[in-house]
Amino acid sequence: MSFDRLQQAIIRTKNPTVAGLDARLEYVPQPMIDRAIAQYGETRKAAAEAIFAFNCGLIDALCDIVPAVKPQAAYYELLGWEGMEMLERTIRYAKEKGMYVIADVKRGDIGATASAYAEGWLGKTVVGGAQLPCFDADCVPVNGYMGADAVNPFLKIANQEDKALFVLVRTSNPSAVDLQDLEIGGGKIYDVMGTLAAKWGEGYLDGYGYNRVGAVVGATWPEQLAQLREALPHTFLLVPGYGAQGGTAEDVRFAFDEKGHGAIVNSSRGIMCAWKKTGNAGADYQDAARAAALEMRDAITAITPILD
Amino acid sequence: MSFDRLQQAIIRTKNPTVAGLDARLEYVPQPMIDRAIAQYGETRKAAAEAIFAFNCGLIDALCDIVPAVKPQAAYYELLGWEGMEMLERTIRYAKEKGMYVIADVKRGDIGATASAYAEGWLGKTVVGGAQLPCFDADCVPVNGYMGADAVNPFLKIANQEDKALFVLVRTSNPSAVDLQDLEIGGGKIYDVMGTLAAKWGEGYLDGYGYNRVGAVVGATWPEQLAQLREALPHTFLLVPGYGAQGGTAEDVRFAFDEKGHGAIVNSSRGIMCAWKKTGNAGADYQDAARAAALEMRDAITAITPILD
Repeated sequence: MSFDRLQQAIIRTKNPTVAGLDARLEYVPQPMIDRAIAQYGETRKAAAEAIFAFNCGLIDALCDIVPAVKPQAAYYELLGWEGMEMLERTIRYAKEKGMYVIADVKRGDIGATASAYAEGWLGKTVVGGAQLPCFDADCVPVNGYMGADAVNPFLKIANQEDKALFVLVRTSNPSAVDLQDLEIGGGKIYDVMGTLAAKWGEGYLDGYGYNRVGAVVGATWPEQLAQLREALPHTFLLVPGYGAQGGTAEDVRFAFDEKGHGAIVNSSRGIMCAWKKTGNAGADYQDAARAAALEMRDAITAITPILD
Repeated sequence: MSFDRLQQAIIRTKNPTVAGLDARLEYVPQPMIDRAIAQYGETRKAAAEAIFAFNCGLIDALCDIVPAVKPQAAYYELLGWEGMEMLERTIRYAKEKGMYVIADVKRGDIGATASAYAEGWLGKTVVGGAQLPCFDADCVPVNGYMGADAVNPFLKIANQEDKALFVLVRTSNPSAVDLQDLEIGGGKIYDVMGTLAAKWGEGYLDGYGYNRVGAVVGATWPEQLAQLREALPHTFLLVPGYGAQGGTAEDVRFAFDEKGHGAIVNSSRGIMCAWKKTGNAGADYQDAARAAALEMRDAITAITPILD
């Protein structure tokens, strides 16, 4: 469940990409929404069920060609507890279909609080004599602004459960520069965070040479991708920002090692919303998502072949 | 609902403190756990119901003397969707009892994702023609590592709903130094973040002189509290780290302005777990929590009187 299981799935599918499951109702074909509202009214439950059906359709369409999914917690919290219940079902369904699940929570808190997050998202909760899984993802991104106290509790659970985490290092958004690009000593703040991530992950290497603490580095900054890839040889990279945000297959080649290993590139709207470009009002959303995923795979692997 | 409603509640109760609602089962008196397990088995539902009963008991015991509560999302996520459903009920119950609710989520994400978080925690979600509140807190802390893109969507919803947010500036934990204390230009990284928070909040001042973007600054760093209070005159401060983490009433006096306004000090375990020190196995958890809250109030206001 650490990154080696993800790497194996990438090698098996020859596809170093992850499909974001970040659905708002606007991304769901109207007939699916209408059906849910007919059954449940204009409620959060209806929204959750429409999105669950959409998620399952996407997973069915992608699970043999895409190794991983990344549900973004925000879109589930937006629907309150009904959304969180549906997120649990989505994660379970994706895992049943053999996909690696990165629950994109970007939590950042300390000590006992970070432990609670880690147990909830990667581990188990104890009630009396029972040990109960909750969201049970394979991996989560974490925000390291609060330092080691925010990361070590996740690492502890990741070690116990053979799972993994990513630390936000250089994000893909324009205002990443507000803090992350400021000069400090001989580098930038994101360099410091990258070095911290590498240090936090020390002491374990999987079969591909990567530890349990990966880093998030945006596709929109190819020079920094190249620099961080070189500086952090044991750090698996999660690369958002492909497609809609501007990152290209040329840009993301810098994220990989010489075997095409050690990184995974995310696309959310590019796959989820591919149906909006086919003119069929969503009737073909599965085919459209699959075609978009194959196109992304082919574009990236034409430049960066994935070796065994 | 902005900070002026919080400030009014602080003045009314003459108490600049907030009670954390961060319960794990270990913090709940055993008879309450036994009752829930008898009814629901060793399930997440049982844990959620035990903690809900405990939360309501705390709120009942505190609502006339403490102006605000701060449920920490991690402890609810630890119980999966049943925990999140119970968090919604807890927030609603506290608001019904007249308390200001800071939902401690420390979310940090960008653009459309940050908007989804903001709508879910402070705003409303749209399903068909319905506008539905979800968690509906009064205020949330936000992590600014990703820059303005992470904060502006929360600020937009806070403006619409007359609510507020805090940005993490200098946290209370030991490893805050890993990143936040590094030297940059003429100051430290937390200075930069404090300045950004002040800038993001510009353009609105409530009746007490504070804007909608507060800052989290730990009680464990009194010099930095004093420095940030002076540097950020329009920034309301949320001060964790009192009590168990080492912060004292002497330390937190630096957080307030000359009227004793502009800051609120958190205590979680000091209040929630006060019953563990009375030797009554939790039968008096409400009285113990109330006594601890009064002691904290008196200690702080003896040094820092709250003027009207």
